[in-house]
Amino acid sequence: MKALVFDKELKLVDYKKPTPAQGEALVRVTLAGICNTDIEITKGYKGFSGILGHEAIGVVEEINASDSSLLGKRVVPEINFGCGKCSWCARGLSSHCPDRRTLGIAGKDGCFAEYFTAPLGVLHEVADTVSDEQAVFVEPLAAALEIVEQLHLKPSDKVLVLGDGKLGTTIALSLCVQNFDTTLVGLSQSKLKIASLQGVKTALLQEIKTERAWDAVVEATGTVSGFETALALVRPRGVLVLKSTVASGKELNLAPIVINEITVLGSRCGPFEPALRLMEKAKIDFIPMISEIYTADRAIEAFEKSREEGVLKVLIRFG
Amino acid sequence: MKALVFDKELKLVDYKKPTPAQGEALVRVTLAGICNTDIEITKGYKGFSGILGHEAIGVVEEINASDSSLLGKRVVPEINFGCGKCSWCARGLSSHCPDRRTLGIAGKDGCFAEYFTAPLGVLHEVADTVSDEQAVFVEPLAAALEIVEQLHLKPSDKVLVLGDGKLGTTIALSLCVQNFDTTLVGLSQSKLKIASLQGVKTALLQEIKTERAWDAVVEATGTVSGFETALALVRPRGVLVLKSTVASGKELNLAPIVINEITVLGSRCGPFEPALRLMEKAKIDFIPMISEIYTADRAIEAFEKSREEGVLKVLIRFG
Repeated sequence: MKALVFDKELKLVDYKKPTPAQGEALVRVTLAGICNTDIEITKGYKGFSGILGHEAIGVVEEINASDSSLLGKRVVPEINFGCGKCSWCARGLSSHCPDRRTLGIAGKDGCFAEYFTAPLGVLHEVADTVSDEQAVFVEPLAAALEIVEQLHLKPSDKVLVLGDGKLGTTIALSLCVQNFDTTLVGLSQSKLKIASLQGVKTALLQEIKTERAWDAVVEATGTVSGFETALALVRPRGVLVLKSTVASGKELNLAPIVINEITVLGSRCGPFEPALRLMEKAKIDFIPMISEIYTADRAIEAFEKSREEGVLKVLIRFG
Repeated sequence: MKALVFDKELKLVDYKKPTPAQGEALVRVTLAGICNTDIEITKGYKGFSGILGHEAIGVVEEINASDSSLLGKRVVPEINFGCGKCSWCARGLSSHCPDRRTLGIAGKDGCFAEYFTAPLGVLHEVADTVSDEQAVFVEPLAAALEIVEQLHLKPSDKVLVLGDGKLGTTIALSLCVQNFDTTLVGLSQSKLKIASLQGVKTALLQEIKTERAWDAVVEATGTVSGFETALALVRPRGVLVLKSTVASGKELNLAPIVINEITVLGSRCGPFEPALRLMEKAKIDFIPMISEIYTADRAIEAFEKSREEGVLKVLIRFG
């Protein structure tokens, strides 16, 4: 089968079609999405080598288990596969299982291929009313919902989302449809427009007053300066949600966290069921976030495209 | 009056005795304590100049207000003086009032003098059963209690306090008497002994297994390496309490916060009433933390002493 593999370099190869292990399903990939994490991996993040990709929708073609209810269904996969035996898995927190494998990120081949395998339990059926092009956003939407899964945001809270990329836009859209007073701040008027056309308040970074006035600030730029800006905007005792991994190569002053008793909350993968529920309500239109769709044989090109400035979501069609 | 002033350099001077403004009391200082923040100020922190000091016990000698109930009483001062008009002050959070003055730290002369003035509302009477030498620890004890004021620590939580200095020891002792499963970790066997003799579990840093096993880790070293160690010890979804200001002059990788969905909670000044209540119960003996007591005319010497390696609390006796 065709597969986009990273092994020191990115290559489109002919790869052995996987066989589902006991308890796994074989999924034929229809459409997959490129995430910034995929790009980070090609720079060495996590030291992963294998088939990339963790955002996809596909159809279950084979099941190696007694429960065959998902056979032939359109599904999206959760990306963390826990050991199923530890206390984290027992509490439903397999995304923190110390022995977890993560689709296309750690210990498990990903979904940038014609097929992938995954444990039955992580596959979620997608309603017929949700198109492939929307469904491929379920994983990032779940990650956006993780914020309110972890944090009690109040209806009266003023929330600022910093970063008008894929992540920030998805977060702002998801908060807005949940009725939170949400402002998306970024550097690109055209990117901000995607959110503003769907009701999100938006502003260019230079338009925002630097005052500690926001109850919650979501850092979704993945940059040190974004983190520092967020720290300068969150009110005393407010919450700074850290949604993208930031590695500082320069001085970083954490004193404002103490002085203003800020809570910095790290937030990663999220719950699929509420993401699918929200998706079915069709309150968010993800289509404007798609910059381009490539066929599988142009997967390398798709990847190069996704690195370009100003580009949002790039999809690869496998089926 | 004698006063220890910082104005580019530290000097013991003859200073004009202050007059209490409307709503203020004049307090004759008995005993005062040197805090690391005082030392930081002499290095330029907060750009403060004036009389240093914010930990003290004294006797109210004069009141410029109709309520004279505290006249002649032994009192300890809270250190943040809010404007009394803003929404922060209205919510009882004057320590976050944007226009606050802070005793000996910002906009208000401190207590390293024979007298200081403070608004009546920040003065708390100290029970006769509490000695001056214990009472001078009320402010740092309140700061320690701020952790559980902000954070729901559970009886079943495993808490690690990193740093066997004044701050870490006070925090560990306060958590221990509140029945939390507390382990104090530091570099000095003799410092750790102060806490272990009062029932706190202690360990040298090199004895601690580097695993993400602790529900809460309190960073009280004030160093970047302390912050990084804390991040490596707190469990996924656990809380890292940042109790001392850390400014990084080197690379700082915040990715573990996101990956393990850690909460970093900044924590500063705390509530005096519960600190005084705990003090009255005499469950914590602060005396072993006193390295030396100096008379006021040796205040400079006291300050030099407090900078020395291995020294804990240094007190200055003014009355």
